Amino acid sequence: MKQYFKVDEWRIIEEGFNPHFNKVAESVFSLGNGRMGGRANFEEAYSGETLQGNYVAGVYYPDKTRVGWWKNGYPEYFAKVLNAANWIGIDISLNGEQLDLAKCKVLNFRRELNMKEGYLKRNFRAVTVSGKEVEVESIRFNSLVDDETGAISYSIRPINFGGYIKLTPFIDGDVVNKDANYDEKFWDEVSKHTWSDGGVLQMRTKKTGFEVATGMKYHISIDGEPEHIEAEPVIREKYIGTEIRMEIKQGQRVTICKYAANLSSQNHPADELMALTQALLDSVCHKGFDTMLAEQAIAWAEKWKQNDIIIEGDAAAQQGIRFNIFQLNQTYTGEDDRLNIGPKGFTGEKYGGSTYWDTEAYCVPFYLATAEQKVSRNLLLYRYKQLGKAIENAKLLGFKDGAALYPMVTMDGTECHNEWEITFEEIHRNGAIAYAIFNYIRYTGDEDYLADYGLEVLIAISRFWSQRVNWSAEREKYVMLGVTGPNEYENNVNNNWYTNTIAVWCLKYTLEVIEKVKASDLTKYSELKYRIDFNEDTETARFKDIISKMYFPYDANLQIYLQQDNYLDKEQTLVKDLPATERPLVQKWSWDRILRSPFIKQADVLQGLYFFEDEYDTDTIRRNYDFYEPRTVHESSLSPCVHSIIAAKLGDIERAYQFYLRTSRLDIDDYNNDTEDGCHITSMAGTWMSVVQGFGGMRVKDGMLSFDPLLPVEWKSLEFQIGFRGTLLSVKVTGEGVSIKNASSQDITVKLHGKDVLIKANAE
Amino acid sequence: MKQYFKVDEWRIIEEGFNPHFNKVAESVFSLGNGRMGGRANFEEAYSGETLQGNYVAGVYYPDKTRVGWWKNGYPEYFAKVLNAANWIGIDISLNGEQLDLAKCKVLNFRRELNMKEGYLKRNFRAVTVSGKEVEVESIRFNSLVDDETGAISYSIRPINFGGYIKLTPFIDGDVVNKDANYDEKFWDEVSKHTWSDGGVLQMRTKKTGFEVATGMKYHISIDGEPEHIEAEPVIREKYIGTEIRMEIKQGQRVTICKYAANLSSQNHPADELMALTQALLDSVCHKGFDTMLAEQAIAWAEKWKQNDIIIEGDAAAQQGIRFNIFQLNQTYTGEDDRLNIGPKGFTGEKYGGSTYWDTEAYCVPFYLATAEQKVSRNLLLYRYKQLGKAIENAKLLGFKDGAALYPMVTMDGTECHNEWEITFEEIHRNGAIAYAIFNYIRYTGDEDYLADYGLEVLIAISRFWSQRVNWSAEREKYVMLGVTGPNEYENNVNNNWYTNTIAVWCLKYTLEVIEKVKASDLTKYSELKYRIDFNEDTETARFKDIISKMYFPYDANLQIYLQQDNYLDKEQTLVKDLPATERPLVQKWSWDRILRSPFIKQADVLQGLYFFEDEYDTDTIRRNYDFYEPRTVHESSLSPCVHSIIAAKLGDIERAYQFYLRTSRLDIDDYNNDTEDGCHITSMAGTWMSVVQGFGGMRVKDGMLSFDPLLPVEWKSLEFQIGFRGTLLSVKVTGEGVSIKNASSQDITVKLHGKDVLIKANAE
Repeated sequence: MKQYFKVDEWRIIEEGFNPHFNKVAESVFSLGNGRMGGRANFEEAYSGETLQGNYVAGVYYPDKTRVGWWKNGYPEYFAKVLNAANWIGIDISLNGEQLDLAKCKVLNFRRELNMKEGYLKRNFRAVTVSGKEVEVESIRFNSLVDDETGAISYSIRPINFGGYIKLTPFIDGDVVNKDANYDEKFWDEVSKHTWSDGGVLQMRTKKTGFEVATGMKYHISIDGEPEHIEAEPVIREKYIGTEIRMEIKQGQRVTICKYAANLSSQNHPADELMALTQALLDSVCHKGFDTMLAEQAIAWAEKWKQNDIIIEGDAAAQQGIRFNIFQLNQTYTGEDDRLNIGPKGFTGEKYGGSTYWDTEAYCVPFYLATAEQKVSRNLLLYRYKQLGKAIENAKLLGFKDGAALYPMVTMDGTECHNEWEITFEEIHRNGAIAYAIFNYIRYTGDEDYLADYGLEVLIAISRFWSQRVNWSAEREKYVMLGVTGPNEYENNVNNNWYTNTIAVWCLKYTLEVIEKVKASDLTKYSELKYRIDFNEDTETARFKDIISKMYFPYDANLQIYLQQDNYLDKEQTLVKDLPATERPLVQKWSWDRILRSPFIKQADVLQGLYFFEDEYDTDTIRRNYDFYEPRTVHESSLSPCVHSIIAAKLGDIERAYQFYLRTSRLDIDDYNNDTEDGCHITSMAGTWMSVVQGFGGMRVKDGMLSFDPLLPVEWKSLEFQIGFRGTLLSVKVTGEGVSIKNASSQDITVKLHGKDVLIKANAE
Repeated sequence: MKQYFKVDEWRIIEEGFNPHFNKVAESVFSLGNGRMGGRANFEEAYSGETLQGNYVAGVYYPDKTRVGWWKNGYPEYFAKVLNAANWIGIDISLNGEQLDLAKCKVLNFRRELNMKEGYLKRNFRAVTVSGKEVEVESIRFNSLVDDETGAISYSIRPINFGGYIKLTPFIDGDVVNKDANYDEKFWDEVSKHTWSDGGVLQMRTKKTGFEVATGMKYHISIDGEPEHIEAEPVIREKYIGTEIRMEIKQGQRVTICKYAANLSSQNHPADELMALTQALLDSVCHKGFDTMLAEQAIAWAEKWKQNDIIIEGDAAAQQGIRFNIFQLNQTYTGEDDRLNIGPKGFTGEKYGGSTYWDTEAYCVPFYLATAEQKVSRNLLLYRYKQLGKAIENAKLLGFKDGAALYPMVTMDGTECHNEWEITFEEIHRNGAIAYAIFNYIRYTGDEDYLADYGLEVLIAISRFWSQRVNWSAEREKYVMLGVTGPNEYENNVNNNWYTNTIAVWCLKYTLEVIEKVKASDLTKYSELKYRIDFNEDTETARFKDIISKMYFPYDANLQIYLQQDNYLDKEQTLVKDLPATERPLVQKWSWDRILRSPFIKQADVLQGLYFFEDEYDTDTIRRNYDFYEPRTVHESSLSPCVHSIIAAKLGDIERAYQFYLRTSRLDIDDYNNDTEDGCHITSMAGTWMSVVQGFGGMRVKDGMLSFDPLLPVEWKSLEFQIGFRGTLLSVKVTGEGVSIKNASSQDITVKLHGKDVLIKANAE
């Protein structure tokens, strides 16, 4: 853990130029607007350590699967996030000398991510090798309002010299992916066009054939006065730029405002991209940088109104949670049901695809409470639209009759991960997808969704489970062999309790939804039955048989659920007995040693108890928590949040707070030494859950919100915003008690500490 | 299964030119002499489908490990078999037109591998595109007598034209490995030298720095009369050749005898290689092709005297077993304790390293009975010399205090395999290495080996087992978690019965050998204890505790050993219920489906019952055989032989014969569609075992040979040769009975059908 960035409630601040931390800062300062985003690379050239990254949502490439030993069932290609054209670049030449911070003496360097208003600002002075000193300020943002655009204001002032300065704003499509197999490049040029103050470059991805036009337009001012300067185009393969050469006096400030747009053929006809991009550039350029920036602040204020969490008395915790909320909003806005939430968002290219079970298990609750209903609905529709591919994927593994196995990692519905023990066996992901449907309906009450989409997914998932179990003549029970649970430090185990539990829950919930849909819309139900060839009698009979005869590993002596068969055969050492030098285990121990140890990567039995807490009494939850937590190394970023929520539920507020700290500043403090690859976007939703469900004790039951808040002693107060079925509540917890305000026009009754409380509308 | 080659008792014959089968034929017709070998590539150019392969024993390259997801504990580099300089090449030009069978009409094509005398002969007529017809005969062998050399006699006769013929014998070091990662080349040129009738090229492997000089010398005759013809050298990077141009009349036969030598820096000083190669070439050239070929026949006759198995009444079975014996003798001669038996021998480059547990489990019994004692002793010493690396390997995985884990696949002692479930978990290989020591001592009586080498290996292996088990408080037994047994269609299972059994056996045998060595040579024992820091009291106490408290999965109901914990939770379908279209499973089913199925790749519990048959009564063996065999798909070439031996033991001679057929012609009939990659060398030893131990019923107990023969009804007689402690026995089984002859000068008493029989010396 490093305390590299300054603590501030609304900003992330870097002071001083530290090339060693540059890639970490590039991740943390990333910008995005749901449609496009990228890392905080410098506008000017930089020959030091950097990971260049600009991404366009939904644009991916099917790379060749590369494994040591091929296993039947692996897909031949897998989709990966693509690094796209660099639109931020502005080369600077000072009397013929290139500005490159890796080669300068850098003074007063400061970067600041303003989370309240949604922009990145950078200031520095640099002294070049020949001694020229300049002062630079850049402000950059990806517009929430015009979400296919970004804008940069870049000012440069010679301090100790006058002479020729050349600015070369450019669009560079000749980019690579760091993780490319065989160093392939993924983009071909389609066309390009430049004009006096800008240009557009259109590229096409290989194989997938996505086309993206990336354009720029700029204007120049000197000491605040617009200047028209003749520019000379620079055109290369996959590159357009314009060289702007001017004579500047010492102390004069030259400012370039560069407007950029990224238009994708996913959203526009490919043959109109050039023209549309040029038109959009004209429009935002006409609007101007200052207006765009002001609109950006208003748009972010609107988001914060629904999203903000205010922690008094603990600035580091405050900064942590705001950073998480900010990044989640940058990553996914829910406008487009073809998009999803990659584990790195727009902050890096690692982990290939964009969608893990993280979306359903961690992100859906966040968007349910902090965004319009359509946002989480779109996340559900994303999976609905990929149902056909999930059925294909299950077929590859030998399943039939409409059984679906959603991929472990995906972009477009095809599997992007290739380790047999994960790809083929970490099948509990299917359960999370069903759970998200349940969670969405529970939260929103939107039961129509079930007849239109939800039930079809549920039946396909239940069909999978009903084929995946087998009858054990030995136990006279159904068993589920050869799986990997959420705890990936166990592979290919039998009867993972969590997987068996969520499988049976899926079957039960499917039966329940069948009855619901039959009652509410028999016509739609009949149509669905016909379309998917659902034999209600025999299939539901099988579901019921499995529900009643499923085997769950349990130890009667300890009165705990066993993570899997024979878990107690392991040597029962505890995490506290592990020397610090042996951690993280994944870096210090060989895989077989990890596998046969009792150590748990992330909540597994506890994940199940968290999902289905109403089915277990508090003593049961406590016994399992007391048994498993001391064996958990939390080497997944998704672990501490679940533990925090359960600890809070069990009244152990101090432990809950410790777990919260571990997750909320994970990236700001580069806790796991891997922030340079990008931020842990999906676990940020887990952090939000640990505040709202943990400390806030928020639940939804029988269509009603309930709260059971507890305040860590370190905090003076906690306040969070919750949207629920048309109301917008602000819950404030202090040492004295809890107050709830309702900013909507609709009264609502909630439970507070178990008692009904009416919260009147229009409170301020 | 294809019946492509002709059945003949002593020869493998191919008739007709079939480019589609060329790579299969290249494998089957491979030549080797233990020191060097290669595939049956053509001497003249061939632009059709071919896998070029020439190999020099012990020369390898550490290639980069390439896996999808890196696991801690994988070695960064791994040794692989290297394709070495091509020494067989003779380019032929007919009036300027290159002879290339892929571009000719080919007539009367015939290849014949003469296994009795150890050479490959090829005849054909070819008509070129321009209509020139030639008749060619080539004979080639790798000399057993001069084992760094090979010789070729290549004759060509123009049938319908006269004119200029150009022969270009060459050495080409610019070769690649088909399986190279990143298309790297592995050889650099060191030096080269040509003279009027030959030349030498010296190459060095990258990283490992092995140097190999490959030289050639030739002479030319026309219609049997030696001719001196001026030749012109052709020299390129990594290539030397000489162009020999001559005018030939229609019907004249020109013959080139090309002698080649491969000298390695493993056997000679690197700076003398060029001179030594030239001297060796002079020597064999002076000896002449016909003398060398005659010597070769004598050397092979000597081998056959000790090795041959004669089956009357079943030519296909006869050809099969001779082919297996021939290939085993070509692969390994036991002269050099740095060498071992690769699964493909000199017939292909697949499977990377050279040594698997196949050597100990399958090959040692073959060489014990058919070669001098030093041959199997050298196989044991190979592992002894790699003990340090096995200890290093165990350390990588977290073991300590001198515990050794031998690699799954190796060339020089470092691990060459990188799949966690195999590399880290298929640890039963350690047991096979201990078992080979036991087997060697049992067969030879060479107990001195134990004090000098064996005990040190046994203690290191026992230390590994004693750290690898853990105490299960639940069972109050020692358990072994997270292993892969011989049946690789199960991964990461708990308490594999075979692994637990061989582990406990290792501990017992180590204790027994400690007592033996203490009794026979206390000084050596004390030295060893001191050198390896062996704490006899505490370490043997631990060994004994594990021996007495080890857990073995067993089903009391079925009275069978369970292959692993919870095996009976699987759906108990049988192989006979599998549609043919679903096999082989490894090509038709996804890996998870294979893993959770009951189907067994190769003998697992049965492998243990085979190794330790004396510890189990026949009923126990039969119950387990009856249970497991119907669940076994035999998708490893090492499976049928063990089943054949057990079936024979149980008196089921018909099943034993079926299993035998399946293994003995595996490559000749390209049973598994993979012979083109090379032959299955190590499983050939298993075939031998199924004849001698299966049908012959041969065992060694208390220092005495015993036989319990049974003849398949398809055979008129079976005769095999056995060397045992200075005697050479020939056992002949007919319908009438068994006769044993003793060609040595020493009487011996053996058991025949349980009764002692004296076999007098010097019988013919």
